[in-house]
Amino acid sequence: MDHELKEIIKKCDIAIKQEDFDTLMNYYTDEAILVVKPGMIARGKGEIKKAFIAIANYFNNSVAPTQGEMIILEAGDTALVLSKTLLTSDKKDSEYSMDRKATYVFKKNSQGQWHCAIDNSYGTELINQ
Amino acid sequence: MDHELKEIIKKCDIAIKQEDFDTLMNYYTDEAILVVKPGMIARGKGEIKKAFIAIANYFNNSVAPTQGEMIILEAGDTALVLSKTLLTSDKKDSEYSMDRKATYVFKKNSQGQWHCAIDNSYGTELINQ
Repeated sequence: MDHELKEIIKKCDIAIKQEDFDTLMNYYTDEAILVVKPGMIARGKGEIKKAFIAIANYFNNSVAPTQGEMIILEAGDTALVLSKTLLTSDKKDSEYSMDRKATYVFKKNSQGQWHCAIDNSYGTELINQ
Repeated sequence: MDHELKEIIKKCDIAIKQEDFDTLMNYYTDEAILVVKPGMIARGKGEIKKAFIAIANYFNNSVAPTQGEMIILEAGDTALVLSKTLLTSDKKDSEYSMDRKATYVFKKNSQGQWHCAIDNSYGTELINQ
């Protein structure tokens, strides 16, 4: 059976594709951050939801993320997910890479539910900026 | 002033260089994991300490890590550190890269102290294996 985080990330990818950002926000912690692009960070569900709406607009409302090879490093109630993330969209001139090695940090709460605390699809490429 | 995590990581690097692994273990959570090498994970302080002793031996007791450019993504009590990590050692034929883009996950406890939960100096390169 796949790791439950793999299933959660799949549900997030579907929610992004369907632009169902209320469902998507259920998978983030209240204090979560999203790296929108290098140098720009959204903090908290309100800002993250707005950022996803802007990202959807940027990609002509056609963006769909999928995950390739994925490694889940789990340590108690904390997990680091390393994932090959592929973005497809109708927009052919994106200034951002559509093929990324992402880093996602998840936290498990006292009910055993995982939520994303740090969503950085740019991975270690940020330190090249 | 530097972020306190930068100071903590500096203290860890000094402890590794001095092979002071008891001091080093103070900076890890009880459930921490260390990616020793691709495919090999040490779990908990006991295994992590043993792994650091083996790593020191592998590098002829001469290994010294230093950090270059570092990005700290902080979300409440969780932080993802992306860091250019440089290893130097007398050993000239290491089969592992000495110049890495590392990913470290830290947790802040109720006393406000940060501890490393996930120590993965290989960063997203693991998904290439």
